[in-house]
Amino acid sequence: MSYIDELGKKAKSAAKNSAMLSQSLKNDILATIAVMLENDRDEIKKANELDITAAHENNMAAAMVDRLTLTDARIDGMAEGVRQVAALPDPVGKILGGNTLPNGLTVIKKSVPLGVIGIIFESRPNVTVDAGCLCLKAGNTVILRGGSDAINSNKCLVGIMRAAAEKHGVNPDIVQLVENTSRDTATELMKANEYVDVLIPRGGGGLINAVIKNATVPVIQTGEGNCHVYVDRFADIDMAVDIVDNAKTQRPSVCNAIENVLVHKNIAEGFLKKLAERWNGNVTFVGDEASSAYITLEKIADDEDYRREFLDLKIAVKIVDDIDEAIAHINRFGTGHSECIVTEYLRNAEKFQREVDAAAVYVNASTRFTDGFEFGLGAEIGISTQKLHVRGPMGLEALTTFKYLVNGNGQTRG
Amino acid sequence: MSYIDELGKKAKSAAKNSAMLSQSLKNDILATIAVMLENDRDEIKKANELDITAAHENNMAAAMVDRLTLTDARIDGMAEGVRQVAALPDPVGKILGGNTLPNGLTVIKKSVPLGVIGIIFESRPNVTVDAGCLCLKAGNTVILRGGSDAINSNKCLVGIMRAAAEKHGVNPDIVQLVENTSRDTATELMKANEYVDVLIPRGGGGLINAVIKNATVPVIQTGEGNCHVYVDRFADIDMAVDIVDNAKTQRPSVCNAIENVLVHKNIAEGFLKKLAERWNGNVTFVGDEASSAYITLEKIADDEDYRREFLDLKIAVKIVDDIDEAIAHINRFGTGHSECIVTEYLRNAEKFQREVDAAAVYVNASTRFTDGFEFGLGAEIGISTQKLHVRGPMGLEALTTFKYLVNGNGQTRG
Repeated sequence: MSYIDELGKKAKSAAKNSAMLSQSLKNDILATIAVMLENDRDEIKKANELDITAAHENNMAAAMVDRLTLTDARIDGMAEGVRQVAALPDPVGKILGGNTLPNGLTVIKKSVPLGVIGIIFESRPNVTVDAGCLCLKAGNTVILRGGSDAINSNKCLVGIMRAAAEKHGVNPDIVQLVENTSRDTATELMKANEYVDVLIPRGGGGLINAVIKNATVPVIQTGEGNCHVYVDRFADIDMAVDIVDNAKTQRPSVCNAIENVLVHKNIAEGFLKKLAERWNGNVTFVGDEASSAYITLEKIADDEDYRREFLDLKIAVKIVDDIDEAIAHINRFGTGHSECIVTEYLRNAEKFQREVDAAAVYVNASTRFTDGFEFGLGAEIGISTQKLHVRGPMGLEALTTFKYLVNGNGQTRG
Repeated sequence: MSYIDELGKKAKSAAKNSAMLSQSLKNDILATIAVMLENDRDEIKKANELDITAAHENNMAAAMVDRLTLTDARIDGMAEGVRQVAALPDPVGKILGGNTLPNGLTVIKKSVPLGVIGIIFESRPNVTVDAGCLCLKAGNTVILRGGSDAINSNKCLVGIMRAAAEKHGVNPDIVQLVENTSRDTATELMKANEYVDVLIPRGGGGLINAVIKNATVPVIQTGEGNCHVYVDRFADIDMAVDIVDNAKTQRPSVCNAIENVLVHKNIAEGFLKKLAERWNGNVTFVGDEASSAYITLEKIADDEDYRREFLDLKIAVKIVDDIDEAIAHINRFGTGHSECIVTEYLRNAEKFQREVDAAAVYVNASTRFTDGFEFGLGAEIGISTQKLHVRGPMGLEALTTFKYLVNGNGQTRG
């Protein structure tokens, strides 16, 4: 039996119990995790220090090292996040519908946990606690497969979660870490259909595409955001500059930040000049030939530029003839995440929302609002860019499925 | 550009329109399809005759030839089925929820079509019309990839659906048939992520497993049913015989028929003898050693027998020590479809429904009721045995997703 098979078997066995934990017991475990994160912070930082040392030895980029680093403030943030998850309503056991059939059978549709969830992610140790606790809250068992860069931090954090479960008499295998971070274990996890119900990759496009390509386990695709703002001919230009500025620069590294601005030819000059003025050289433009008449481009944009997530202070510009060209461009290059039109013309607003194929389609607001907390879901395990199961921000409900309970008194089919 | 790429491109382009067809126009197209099926029946039967002749030349088994054959009654049945789909409520455009956020943004969650659906199926030409029309009703574009055995029938039927769309001024590419039925086109369709939003395989276990193994497009897994009845120690034995008889013999070839009966050791003798008496040699038993004391077995059952769908008048028997052994057996060998306990003891009924991991978990009723029509969904595109998106019978709603429409007046994130 392979290493992943062993983890999978333990996870499936633990899932029988995790699915039946009461709300209060799950919340007690979460509360204990929060306290232990705070109390064991020295141990956490010591483990994290090993990862940081290794990162420096491997010449990891500063931004990556920063993501990897666990400070006191970040540990406090993790603990606070766990308490917030505990405070959310339990998504399991909801009666979602039902009926009494003509033959007297009663059919009840009830929410239940998904079962065993595999999370494949990169080197952000905060994902370990965050994703682990969301899965637990929804009654699931979780197998966490983080990057090798964070292995010491992850071992320590998962150790805390397991110890918290044990303190409450619960099988610690409700949270397991894949400690062997070879490429093989990731691939095996993607094909562990016998044990794993759902895989959720969290990370960059490369990781997500590898999972989609290799997984036979059902996948929820998350987090790739090649988002656009289309500045319509009938836009309020000042509002458009504010929205584009916010959607690009407020936090450029996240998936709901925009990577492209499309602008109607009739207002391109006025808008682009104002935008360039606002940014004053702090954001790099690439763009089509036409736009080069009004702004300074780093280069003429090609399809690759329009397809790419810069995740940086860089934006691709395109001047379009009409709203149809804008919509066609978005449906071609977008990743189905968040798209926005700035317009005062009702018919164009409606057309854009109808025809753009994305999880969240905005009129006159920054795409930065596509977020589980902002949308009122209370939490977020990621933002789905696929159409099955869940689309857009995924709250706790996305970590559940349902079953039909059918009760009779001897009914047979005629 | 490959053949499948071409179909995919046309499908994606047509999906822009199909998603926006009004309810009444979609229903008009469906009504026209029904009329054309009736009026063009000679043409349909002539095309079908080609497939039947080829089937005989290839020495196809009689049961398979029967599935392939389109009689007048079956054509009437198809037309009637299309009219029933037309009469169902439209699943698109429903407002599923929404909110006004503290900053004044309104968020509306609205149901929309999935987009482009690929259906991969075997040689039942009725699936062509049935699946095609359900996809259309939900505003989707569909690529149908049936088996080569039914190619002439399918060409004719898809031709009718396309002509009906054209009659109403709608792009006929909302329904396309993969006319090249080589293995390569199936594999290509499974990897056409750029064009296809969802794949639904309809057919036997071999087909479904090939799709799961090879697809990179999200798949809805349907139709494998290794179902059980567990006859509890506290069962009404006459009711148990009725339920097992119905679930096994009323239509043995379908996925919600049972393949196994588990029985508590304390009542095994009485129950098994009564069951054998009821069946009087018409159903073949395989079973464990213990059961051979009470009934005549074809052979001692091994894991393969417990894992297999017989889809025939054959059943696997196992005598268990207690309900826990029954539940463990079901969760090990079952396919998550439909499972039943026969018992008068409330605590065992509840335990079984809580701990068995399946789409539909029954107390004291035949598993044969797991069906979109029986459950009141109005239609059925298949029965999902996976946990993402939809579980159990899939009605029209399962062929939709949703998008968030977010409306503001210049909101940016602070």
